[in-house]
Order: sequence, then C-alpha cells, then structure tokens
Amino acid sequence: MQIDNSEYTEDALISRLLKRVPTPDEEGFKPGDDAAILEIGNSRTLACADVLVEGVHFDFAVSTPGDVGWKALAVNLSDIAAMGGKPLNALVVLGIALDERGYLIAEELYEGLGECAQAFGVAVSGGDLTSSQRTFISVTVIGSLHSSGDILLRSGAQTGDLICVTGVLGEAALALKYRDLLYREHLWVQRLCRPVPRLREGNAILAAGGTSAIDISDGLLLDLTRLTIASEKAAYVDPERVPRPMPFDWPVPEAPHELDEQRVRAALGGGDDYELCFTIAPDRLSALESTWPEDGAKFTVIGEIKDGEGVAGPGGLLPPRGWDHLRQEQENLRAL
Amino acid sequence: MQIDNSEYTEDALISRLLKRVPTPDEEGFKPGDDAAILEIGNSRTLACADVLVEGVHFDFAVSTPGDVGWKALAVNLSDIAAMGGKPLNALVVLGIALDERGYLIAEELYEGLGECAQAFGVAVSGGDLTSSQRTFISVTVIGSLHSSGDILLRSGAQTGDLICVTGVLGEAALALKYRDLLYREHLWVQRLCRPVPRLREGNAILAAGGTSAIDISDGLLLDLTRLTIASEKAAYVDPERVPRPMPFDWPVPEAPHELDEQRVRAALGGGDDYELCFTIAPDRLSALESTWPEDGAKFTVIGEIKDGEGVAGPGGLLPPRGWDHLRQEQENLRAL
Repeated sequence: MQIDNSEYTEDALISRLLKRVPTPDEEGFKPGDDAAILEIGNSRTLACADVLVEGVHFDFAVSTPGDVGWKALAVNLSDIAAMGGKPLNALVVLGIALDERGYLIAEELYEGLGECAQAFGVAVSGGDLTSSQRTFISVTVIGSLHSSGDILLRSGAQTGDLICVTGVLGEAALALKYRDLLYREHLWVQRLCRPVPRLREGNAILAAGGTSAIDISDGLLLDLTRLTIASEKAAYVDPERVPRPMPFDWPVPEAPHELDEQRVRAALGGGDDYELCFTIAPDRLSALESTWPEDGAKFTVIGEIKDGEGVAGPGGLLPPRGWDHLRQEQENLRAL
Repeated sequence: MQIDNSEYTEDALISRLLKRVPTPDEEGFKPGDDAAILEIGNSRTLACADVLVEGVHFDFAVSTPGDVGWKALAVNLSDIAAMGGKPLNALVVLGIALDERGYLIAEELYEGLGECAQAFGVAVSGGDLTSSQRTFISVTVIGSLHSSGDILLRSGAQTGDLICVTGVLGEAALALKYRDLLYREHLWVQRLCRPVPRLREGNAILAAGGTSAIDISDGLLLDLTRLTIASEKAAYVDPERVPRPMPFDWPVPEAPHELDEQRVRAALGGGDDYELCFTIAPDRLSALESTWPEDGAKFTVIGEIKDGEGVAGPGGLLPPRGWDHLRQEQENLRAL
C-alpha cells in the first residue's frame, strides 16, 4: 500500500535512500520503528535522531529558544517512549548564526534542553556546534530497553487488538494554525512548544502486554497507517471517539460548524502531538488500567485492528492525511 | 589555559553551554573526548555526532554530493578511531531543499555515505529527513569499545611519552585554499573530499599501549593543545618533523619561499586532516611498529610530552592555531 501517489513523500524518499546504504543484516532490526534497535556486543540499545529547523519546524515568533531546546529533546524522547524504552544519553548538534544573537539563542536553547533533560533523567554526553544561517538543532538520544528486555514495535498489532491513543490530539496543530491569535500561555501553545514525552505511559503499555506502538508526530491517520503497514493489518477507527481539542474559547473568523469540523480534522491529521498510538488485546485492558501512571495522560480506545489493509471509519476509508516534512508548512496547514 | 582570548571560541562556547544541561555524573565520563563513552546497563558504548553544513563545511563547487555523504560519515568514524573503538551503526539526519535538485542531492549523498559505510562495516539504522534551504547532514555513529575494553582518551598522556601523528598533515587545507586551481583528481582534493578514517591505526595504537589520542580535525596545534590541556601536560614539537604536503606541482602566484612556509603552516594549523595525534611511551614503540597495519597510514614521531603546559617548539611557544568552526571560513584560511 502506498501512502501517497507522489514518488517523493517523506516515507517514499526514505525508502529510496535506504536502498543505497548498508542497513542492519537479516538478523538485526531493519530501520522503520521510532527508534533503531542496535545490537552492540551482547546487549541491545535504542537510538533515534530528530532535527528541528528554523522556518520549518519552529519560528522564533511563536517559540522561545528555550522552547526549541526543550522540544528538540522531547521529540526524541517521544520516539523512545513509543518503544517502551528508557532514555539515557543525548548528543546535541547545534547550528547557529555567528553573531551575538546566535550565541544568546544557543544559551537559551541549551537552558530549555537542560530542563527537559533534567525532567526525564537524560545526560547530555556530547555533540557538535557549527555556524549556520538558520538555527537548527539535531538531537540523538540513546537509551536502554525496558527492564523486561521487551520492545514495542510498529509491527506487532494483531487482529482483534484494541487501538488506543494517549492524551488529546490536534491541539498543537491548532496552535500552529492560530498562532497569531493565541497568547503564549494558552494550553494549545504549550502543547506545541513544550510537548511532554509519554515515557511512563510507554512503559505501562509494554508492561501490560501492549502489542505495538508508534508516536503520533505527523498526525494520527498517517502514523496509524504506518503502524498498519508494518503490522500487515487494517484498522477501524471511530473518529467520534478520538479525543479532540476543546471548543475554541476566543473569537475566530470561521463559522461554528467549520470550527467543529476543524477540531476533528486536527485530531485526525494534525502533526506535532507526540502522543502514543498503541494496540493491546482486549483481555489486557484491565492490566493496563491498573499499571497506568496516575498523573499520566489518559488513554482512550478509538478502534480495532482488523485483517486486511488501510484505515477505515464508519463512512469508509480514512486517507492517511498528516504532516509531510517534505511539503511546505502552508500546504500542510491548508490540509487541516 | 585558555585557547583564545575570545569568550566565544568554539571550545569556550561549548563549555558555557554544557553548564546549562545535566552531564554524566561523577562516575561517568564527562564530555570532552572525540566520542562520548556511554554506560548502558552493564556495558559501555561509544557515540559521537558531527554535522556538515553547505557553505560552511562544504561547497558543491568543490565536493560532489557523494563526497559530502562519504565525509559526513568519515569524520565521525575518525572520532571513533581516536578512541581506538569499532564503529557499528549510524543515524543520518539530512536537510535538503524541497525540489528536484534537492532529491538528487539526497540520493547521491546517500550513495557516497553508503560507500563509506560499506568500506568500514557500518550499518545505517535510522535517522531523519527534513526540508532545509541549505543542505546539511548530521551523522551520529555508535560503536563498541576495543575488544580489550580499553579506551584511548585525550587525558592519558604521560611525561616522557613520544608524540606521534599518522599520515601527512595540511593537504586538505591546501586543497581548500587552492580549490580554484586544482583538478578534482589531485591527491589533496581527494584528501579534502574523501578523508579516510584511521580506524585500524587507532586499534593498533591502543593494542600497543598508546596513552592518549585525538583526531586532527581542526589542525595539529589546536588539537594537540586540547590533548595537553586534558592530560595536564606540556608538549614539545619539532615542526621540521611534522609530515607536510609535497611541494606544489603546478604554478601558483606565490614566491617559492612563501610556498614552503605555507606548507609548514598548513601542516601545523590546517584543519580537515582526520589523521590521529597520539602519545606512547618510548619503550612501546617497537610493539607499535610490529602491530601497525601494513597498508595503513605511516606514523611519525614529532615530539615529546613534558611537564607543564602549552605546546612549544625550538623557537618557543607554538600558539594553538587551527580551524575554529565559529569563525568564518575566510578568516580561517587567512590564518594559513
């Protein structure tokens, strides 16, 4: 199944590129999960790398440099969370302009990154610093597997499993869309600028016997489609059950019914949420409820894994809309 | 000892930034070596991350995209070589323009990276892809320690140790300076565009009992100064013994004596060499000769570790000239 007709969606281009380099051998784990599983000596390690680029992933009109530092680490911790792992170390590669403003940005950015590192027990162990016209920050996180030695993969979903998500989806996308109207302290802006990686939740899912997981960084339908492709299954989702943002609490130009539709679209296809989408057998649900972290993000059952392929709802197929990093931001926002 | 009077040299800024984030605790290894040593479970892992940015580290007028892919991995493998380790996996973060040219660059870049990965037994395990006006590629390499469990650090040099370097120094810097006059197949251009990481040499140094090492990425005097600071020692170096580029074999505007001086300056302070500078006790030199890889880069004794601080030659102190990534390229080249 193809995610898009274009030869150059992000997923298609990555597949093409990976054909040109040696990847881990048959015995190892192929690239494709949120984090790579590395076999080093007799032990297994998790590693992932994600980058944030000024003008692409963030804008200093919305995010402070501290926010960017926090988020650059948090999005990687979210990848480790989706594997049920424990993050340990980070390497930070920072590109900044060679001027006084660039140095200030670097310091504030490290301050925010440090707050996130502190909050989730990660040590910064190294990296690189370079000059760059536009600020960018690429973070690699290395972590250990869950203490059981088990791993949550995208490929483990079984027919009959329940599909669940953590938290509320779509708030970050709406914050981006309405950034000129929102004040910085608004919950949605906080969700966009300081996402909270669901590490304890990922651990609880794995401990309760969850069968697969993915982090929702590019939008629920796109990321769930990736999970179904990896698992060679289909998914049925009830859009009404997907936790969506609260109604708008300030005046916006659109008509009320348009806003309601927009909230649903944001929940289904908005990017930057960093919640987890996971699957679990129905008979493990009570175990999940009992191990779920008390002050964690709640989880919600939104559908079920089926035989076949594709993601469908009550009205038929739900196309894998979501955030494509190879499209321009405006194009992604128009799709909301 | 300060590397520069400026508050904002690369080393000074990195120190300032690291104060703002949690770093590995007292028991662990502090950032500062070519690669970080991570303690994961009961085992130790090496990890390093380096980035190449268009217009800062490379220029498509000199390097092909394939060269850039090769080099982006090779500079990281050089960091693993300086620790005497074995590289295993790479994560690749690539930023490209969102157009046909960008996609072609991405594919050729992966082709060159794949050639380097194949040559040195590295698997590409994951990464990220993003849009960026200027091409950049940030690679993280994760590797294992030498089979003995020992590690080469910057901090191990002992008084009386010999100071050695691998290969010839300064060729890459001269290729950069004379890029408009040199044809692509010239040895110096190859050294600039396709550096060879000294992995087997690093292994041999460790196996023979080498006491410290650093890779010469920013210039001999700057990198050796870093080694002496980490080891809390001084170094005596005889510039005449440092292997320098062969005389120019094509017409250049400068007078012959200027060119001779330039070759020495390039060998002492030119960046981008990716050779190793290491120290070893004199009585281990015969062991080193017997384990040295036959077809590897030769090594040369260039000086001796002393008590005290700073790097000196027969004419007095040798200032830590070298490539500062926070200076503009033209400024670095003028210093050559």
